[in-house]
Amino acid sequence: MELLFLGTSSGTPTKSRNVTALAVLDEQGPGWCLVDAGEGTQHQVLKSPLSLRDLRAILVTHVHGDHCYGLPGLLASAGLSGRQAPLQIIAPEGIEEWLRATQAATQLHLPFEMEFIRAEPVRHLPLGPWRVDAVELSHRVPSFAYAFTEAQVEPMLDTEKLAQDGVPQGPLWGRLKKGIEVEHAGRVLRPADYLKHPFAPRKIIVGGDNDRPDLLAEACAGCQVLVHEATYTADVAAKVGPGVGHSHAAAVAAFAESVGLPHLVLTHFSARYQANTGESSGMGSGPTIDDIRAEAAAAYRGQLWLADDFARYRLLRTGEFGPVSGPPT
Amino acid sequence: MELLFLGTSSGTPTKSRNVTALAVLDEQGPGWCLVDAGEGTQHQVLKSPLSLRDLRAILVTHVHGDHCYGLPGLLASAGLSGRQAPLQIIAPEGIEEWLRATQAATQLHLPFEMEFIRAEPVRHLPLGPWRVDAVELSHRVPSFAYAFTEAQVEPMLDTEKLAQDGVPQGPLWGRLKKGIEVEHAGRVLRPADYLKHPFAPRKIIVGGDNDRPDLLAEACAGCQVLVHEATYTADVAAKVGPGVGHSHAAAVAAFAESVGLPHLVLTHFSARYQANTGESSGMGSGPTIDDIRAEAAAAYRGQLWLADDFARYRLLRTGEFGPVSGPPT
Repeated sequence: MELLFLGTSSGTPTKSRNVTALAVLDEQGPGWCLVDAGEGTQHQVLKSPLSLRDLRAILVTHVHGDHCYGLPGLLASAGLSGRQAPLQIIAPEGIEEWLRATQAATQLHLPFEMEFIRAEPVRHLPLGPWRVDAVELSHRVPSFAYAFTEAQVEPMLDTEKLAQDGVPQGPLWGRLKKGIEVEHAGRVLRPADYLKHPFAPRKIIVGGDNDRPDLLAEACAGCQVLVHEATYTADVAAKVGPGVGHSHAAAVAAFAESVGLPHLVLTHFSARYQANTGESSGMGSGPTIDDIRAEAAAAYRGQLWLADDFARYRLLRTGEFGPVSGPPT
Repeated sequence: MELLFLGTSSGTPTKSRNVTALAVLDEQGPGWCLVDAGEGTQHQVLKSPLSLRDLRAILVTHVHGDHCYGLPGLLASAGLSGRQAPLQIIAPEGIEEWLRATQAATQLHLPFEMEFIRAEPVRHLPLGPWRVDAVELSHRVPSFAYAFTEAQVEPMLDTEKLAQDGVPQGPLWGRLKKGIEVEHAGRVLRPADYLKHPFAPRKIIVGGDNDRPDLLAEACAGCQVLVHEATYTADVAAKVGPGVGHSHAAAVAAFAESVGLPHLVLTHFSARYQANTGESSGMGSGPTIDDIRAEAAAAYRGQLWLADDFARYRLLRTGEFGPVSGPPT
């Protein structure tokens, strides 16, 4: 299961980061889910291996423009590409009404159905191999995190026990693995006795804008990966004031540490943070992405990642998580 | 006076062309006008020497998304950049209502006023050094061309006549040039007698989507440059059918020829046209931008240009027009 970041800037795009969008992929096929669609998301999709025809669902965390202004153009282009399959759109109140108003105002006729689902009551929503839950966050407008949990964990055969019980390797093993009872040596063998689940279901949480990471404490149980905004460092957050409803790196990191989260991916960086010290303009004092990294690293002992546009991460069955190398296209 | 193309694709962006947007610049300063703003226009502005703070006005040709879906994000970013100056938005019915609805739905609070002007009755609207007139076109929705005419042509002194009449070079010449009457050798000299206007006012027409170029015949009088869509070649247009409301290259070129237009710039090319034959995929038969060029060139004897993203053209006082070299940033 993979995450492909399509935008990692907050508020406005920069020359190296687009506004928020994240593709969530799985091993079942080309189908993918999109969390948020800031302006220019379809342009990022063009530069990726993704296709709008394979898009299974769009999940919108909140109504702010840097998370949704890419929706109308992306939907229009999906239509022009010949997509006919219905598209699920899970979003807070306001998005459906705005998209319908946009369709009417701009004469946008889509050759596929949009199936809107309100974020508020989303619990265990089946979405491909996932079961999705919405968690309400704290921001200037209603904002949600989406927890993607693997719906079905593929079991492994307990080959030691099969050997002990004298069950010969072959078709019997295959049927047991598929969950089918078999007969052997006059005995009925039940799959439950020969299957084990060594790995917990994979779980990834993708947060929207949020100034209270602790609201995710319960959802983080059994979660391997949290993607969360870290718009600022603590010093800048103090200057900006609490009214913006964003988190700073130290707060997110401390939260992740407190719940023992194994992997934390930070994103949604204010455009004021330069790419890194090496690329700074020489004008001296501007903060850099490295400042965000250092602040988070000081408060968190798990594996920390700062997302870039087109960064791709893979979560294995074993719970291991890390960047996938290779060209984006 | 310059044109800087920010998007030259119709319908959907491609890897090398964004959807429609065009900056109109002048010699008076950094102020500029934007005609249309497809999704990603603010991203193109980021890659250009333009600043959203200097934006004087936005003119929208029609409500289709590939001409306006970039407006909300561009306005939001202008606000985040600290712009406070009011912004004129000249647009057909529907755009103001949609932008107001978008503001409400996405909680977009702008620190500047938007001053909406309906395109329909726009006649001689002063816009910096320009006087702008809207011309109604033919498309699936109300669509307009905007004619930019230089409001004031700087006169030149008739130095021959001044010498003949014995008016000595110096302050007297300067005052006459400014349009002030002077006294010399007991006579009152009137500026009108010593000023000449060797060049006609510059005039550029930027069309919206349109399947009847002939609607621009009257407006093209005294016009040096027409920017017009050529979405298709004639063969593709025949396949697509007349319902789309677009022009093909041969029709636009024949119109330009019929009115003796000196310079024609084609844009808004269907994404099916590959960059050129050299870059084609080798799969053989796809049409190219060169096909559009060849079709137009066969019907038009004036100077023909096919716009690319970030192509920049300059119109001199003399009426000369052509590409400006130099890097876009």
